[in-house]
Amino acid sequence: MIVVKIGGAQGVSLDLISQDIASLTQQGQKVVVVHGGSAETNEISEKLGHPARFVTSVSGFSSRYTDRQTLEIFAMVANGRINTLLVECLQKKGVNAFGLCGVDGRVMEAHRKEAIRIVENGKQRMLRDDYTGKIVSVNGVLLKMLIEAGLTPVVAPLAVSPEGDAVNVDADRAAAMVAGAIGAEQLILLTNVPGLMRDFPDEGTLIPHIPRGGLEQALSFAEGRMKKKVLGASEALDQGVTKVIFADGRTAHPLFDAIAGKGTVIS
Amino acid sequence: MIVVKIGGAQGVSLDLISQDIASLTQQGQKVVVVHGGSAETNEISEKLGHPARFVTSVSGFSSRYTDRQTLEIFAMVANGRINTLLVECLQKKGVNAFGLCGVDGRVMEAHRKEAIRIVENGKQRMLRDDYTGKIVSVNGVLLKMLIEAGLTPVVAPLAVSPEGDAVNVDADRAAAMVAGAIGAEQLILLTNVPGLMRDFPDEGTLIPHIPRGGLEQALSFAEGRMKKKVLGASEALDQGVTKVIFADGRTAHPLFDAIAGKGTVIS
Repeated sequence: MIVVKIGGAQGVSLDLISQDIASLTQQGQKVVVVHGGSAETNEISEKLGHPARFVTSVSGFSSRYTDRQTLEIFAMVANGRINTLLVECLQKKGVNAFGLCGVDGRVMEAHRKEAIRIVENGKQRMLRDDYTGKIVSVNGVLLKMLIEAGLTPVVAPLAVSPEGDAVNVDADRAAAMVAGAIGAEQLILLTNVPGLMRDFPDEGTLIPHIPRGGLEQALSFAEGRMKKKVLGASEALDQGVTKVIFADGRTAHPLFDAIAGKGTVIS
Repeated sequence: MIVVKIGGAQGVSLDLISQDIASLTQQGQKVVVVHGGSAETNEISEKLGHPARFVTSVSGFSSRYTDRQTLEIFAMVANGRINTLLVECLQKKGVNAFGLCGVDGRVMEAHRKEAIRIVENGKQRMLRDDYTGKIVSVNGVLLKMLIEAGLTPVVAPLAVSPEGDAVNVDADRAAAMVAGAIGAEQLILLTNVPGLMRDFPDEGTLIPHIPRGGLEQALSFAEGRMKKKVLGASEALDQGVTKVIFADGRTAHPLFDAIAGKGTVIS
């Protein structure tokens, strides 16, 4: 089984990726897709008069501030627009895709970070009423039931808290947790760069292979979003995934290229 | 098994309906929920600068004109916002709800009406590029697999054409087709009126019971949206559903009232 995370960055062609998924599933490969939603949520939030707001945690990670209204817009865009249209795109290519998010059947359970400590204008303060979470468990049995029924699950990055609240979760780390839960051999994180670079954005410094023990050092090279991918890779390997690949989603055959070892392979 | 269609009309409380669904599922009753999306799609389309447009078919039915952009907004709102928030509301009450739409796993297949003949300013003309469909089949096996796994399916009114296009379908008739496909005993259509009235909107003229053979006459009393409910009732009975109930979704216990026979019972 392969888990593929598709980023929403510019230049990534859902159509070409879907074509590769169709070829793989026709060969009998089982695939689970996880996607993001940030970029389009920003656009639509802006149009709806509730522009996105980003905050920086004390540990230096930037994340979306998800108040209740933002959570509802995020659910609408990620689980309605992106998920449905991706499922439709896959169906057109003959893949029996099945969209869901982590709230459905409690597939992804998260610890809701009700209060997060952020840095704003150089000062620390607590931010409450945030609907963001960190996934603590994925129901692999339910996902495998869908896969066994011949379906290709397409997962939107929302999870459910113990109290039943929907929360926004990081899609890279969701993909890592899904890969671990279903016992996938490979996790492929498609993005709009060729992989992890020692000296971003110099593509000549692409790191082709990172051994498992080298992930901590890799974290120091990672810029912005790439940090979460490195954390996701680490979580996936911890859960038994054999190989994680950071690959370019902008090529003509993004998945076949990744499987052939193009990009950054972590194993 | 009971199929419940929840309308999006004003005064219908998702919270109270969800509470009834929770009580029923705790009693071991299996429930499938189908919901609409029209009213909220209109609101959000307006905000996004692509206001809804309604057309009247030559046979006198009013329906949404669903161009590609409208279809994408409809998918976003119905399958993202309404579906996810309803699933969340049910999860909060202990119901293991599982949201999906008919594109997922091709659960609902529809014949896409690519061209519809409409009446505009008294003249007939053809309208093309419409993403609306009429459901031709529902995959009851897949829905029953979810139900057997302890899940409560929550279905958004989108279906898939043979070519893989997502299409907007009528939610009342979707509920009827779902009820037939899973072999439900009862189909409950909740709305914001007490049932079918002989002389709408005079609630004193509520029709408490319609025998199966009386549906054609009932169609002549039905106004607006109620016409599609009567057609849905007829389709459901044709497919083996024992009882269809048009009931008021605005009471304190909408489902228990409906099951007790309040509203218009068709059997």
